[in-house]
Amino acid sequence: MTQHAQVQTVWPEDELSVLAVKAFQGLGLTQADAKDVVQVLVMADLFGLSTHGLSRVESYGERLLVNGINARPNITVQKPAPALRLVDGDNGVGPLVGMHALRAAIDAAKQCGIGMAFARGSNHFGPISPYSLIAAQQGFASIIGSNATTTIAPWGGSDARLGNSPLGFGVPNPGGDPFLLDMAMSVVARAKIRNALKRGEAIPDTWATDDKGRATTDPKAALDGFLQPIGGHKGYGLALLVDLFAGLLSNAAYLTHVKSWVDAPDEPQNLGHFFILINTQMLGSTQWLTERMTDFASILHDSPAAVEGRQVIVPGEIELNKMRQQRAEGIKLDPATVTLLHQHAASAK
Amino acid sequence: MTQHAQVQTVWPEDELSVLAVKAFQGLGLTQADAKDVVQVLVMADLFGLSTHGLSRVESYGERLLVNGINARPNITVQKPAPALRLVDGDNGVGPLVGMHALRAAIDAAKQCGIGMAFARGSNHFGPISPYSLIAAQQGFASIIGSNATTTIAPWGGSDARLGNSPLGFGVPNPGGDPFLLDMAMSVVARAKIRNALKRGEAIPDTWATDDKGRATTDPKAALDGFLQPIGGHKGYGLALLVDLFAGLLSNAAYLTHVKSWVDAPDEPQNLGHFFILINTQMLGSTQWLTERMTDFASILHDSPAAVEGRQVIVPGEIELNKMRQQRAEGIKLDPATVTLLHQHAASAK
Repeated sequence: MTQHAQVQTVWPEDELSVLAVKAFQGLGLTQADAKDVVQVLVMADLFGLSTHGLSRVESYGERLLVNGINARPNITVQKPAPALRLVDGDNGVGPLVGMHALRAAIDAAKQCGIGMAFARGSNHFGPISPYSLIAAQQGFASIIGSNATTTIAPWGGSDARLGNSPLGFGVPNPGGDPFLLDMAMSVVARAKIRNALKRGEAIPDTWATDDKGRATTDPKAALDGFLQPIGGHKGYGLALLVDLFAGLLSNAAYLTHVKSWVDAPDEPQNLGHFFILINTQMLGSTQWLTERMTDFASILHDSPAAVEGRQVIVPGEIELNKMRQQRAEGIKLDPATVTLLHQHAASAK
Repeated sequence: MTQHAQVQTVWPEDELSVLAVKAFQGLGLTQADAKDVVQVLVMADLFGLSTHGLSRVESYGERLLVNGINARPNITVQKPAPALRLVDGDNGVGPLVGMHALRAAIDAAKQCGIGMAFARGSNHFGPISPYSLIAAQQGFASIIGSNATTTIAPWGGSDARLGNSPLGFGVPNPGGDPFLLDMAMSVVARAKIRNALKRGEAIPDTWATDDKGRATTDPKAALDGFLQPIGGHKGYGLALLVDLFAGLLSNAAYLTHVKSWVDAPDEPQNLGHFFILINTQMLGSTQWLTERMTDFASILHDSPAAVEGRQVIVPGEIELNKMRQQRAEGIKLDPATVTLLHQHAASAK
């Protein structure tokens, strides 16, 4: 688009963060809160997860402007037990609530060896891998999950009653790259089905069902229907368990009680998250963990490749390599996102 | 087989437990330890999970008799932090080590709200759902995992380097059935491929690879190859993360360091498990949890069935219904298992 012709689309991390913090201040956040949000979203862009990075300034911004998200939340943390934290996000921007919950869980894990934070009153909190990396860099293994707007039918059902809830894990490696796994429960993202439709191709019958809950190879019927979870009833079960921990036990909304981001932009979604953090420094020495993590990755890398020239990789490897590359060469952004960041930044006081 | 013609194959729970405890005493365990083992295995049979129930007396027994498993382990529990427990199973029977670790994690969660036990020096510990149910009945939500003998190739690799590690979850419902999910990471069990071979049928190319790591529809090639994980790289990542928590962080063996049960029956496997327990009584009242859990299940059950007459179910429903049925009508067992239980029981002092 011509309006973006002149915008800078490759950014050094620091410069981009300054602009993005200003943009979220323009949307009403305090500078400190904007910094939390930007830390998560810029890390998503560094990982190459651009759909969950600063491009979210568009959807977060729309909701902030109609007060569907609270720009100045009063986030509170309760401590019902030594290792538990209950975080009320007061309908703040998701990554802000996420960062508060992450810090609360780390605080608990520092004291007790393992700590858990349940967050309620939240919104879309970005991808999980940034939280897992921040935790891993401080020596904490993590299990993190969030619920989401309902887009998936129960296994054997025929209407959307659960979200494509993300679940993530991290394990630190003091002497090298941590393991990071960040996954949604669907076999594929909807974008892959849209691409098949554009190319006029059939899809495997394991990707989606039609609107009656029946497996389909027709991408058009699939887009009117529901994504299928990985492993059928197994992914269905995993998605439910994430919602039970992130939504039900956290006292947030769950299943169909989660308000649609699209249909009700001015109503709080009341999403929930959970953060389980484990202090690996209480399990063994830095050398012990480094040796075992290095050996673990080597065993996997050394499996002869099924396709010649395509070495086996471990979870997080793609994202961490992309981060190193973009830290060296600059972070690539969509021109529309940059333009929007400039617009919101211009309204900052 | 004629030798089993006269054996009783339907048993009341109490009577079966008495026989099974005697059988494990015959294999050298103390009565107290045998009771722990039998509690897990009989519950597996009650759930209808007969491959993970008392039929295991055969493989556990073989290893006990050659001292591949220690009949009289000295199981120890360390407490490196208020909410962490390190359990050394001293190569005891798996479900015995599992029950010690479960109790240690519950003890930690009672004090801190969440507790975690890492177990090392263990063996196959049965299915996960019995542990989850015992925890749920006391008000604890759970995340439990174990590593396993290597049978799966890394995603994109071509030799067996990780196990089909089970992962399980439970969430209590004080007013009804808890949610229980107990899953391995493969799309299907090997038995399903063996059945396809017997019937001379092709299998979907998502079930397994051949021995070069290439997807196959030939059941024979699949049985010479490797099971595929659910969701491809997602299930691969999940299996690794289970092993990182259950094997690497617990200080047990992991990946190819796990000794083969079949090739080295007299060497300790040094399997590892992890148990994360959350005290739901610290999150809200019994009434609060009952209302939310009942509502959660109703939302799922009320989704119109994709196939008429086949109502949507929730994780654990099949197993808990089977348990009620078998508590009323008796537990069904394979005659070979009953014969073996009698044999070992006869050698008990």
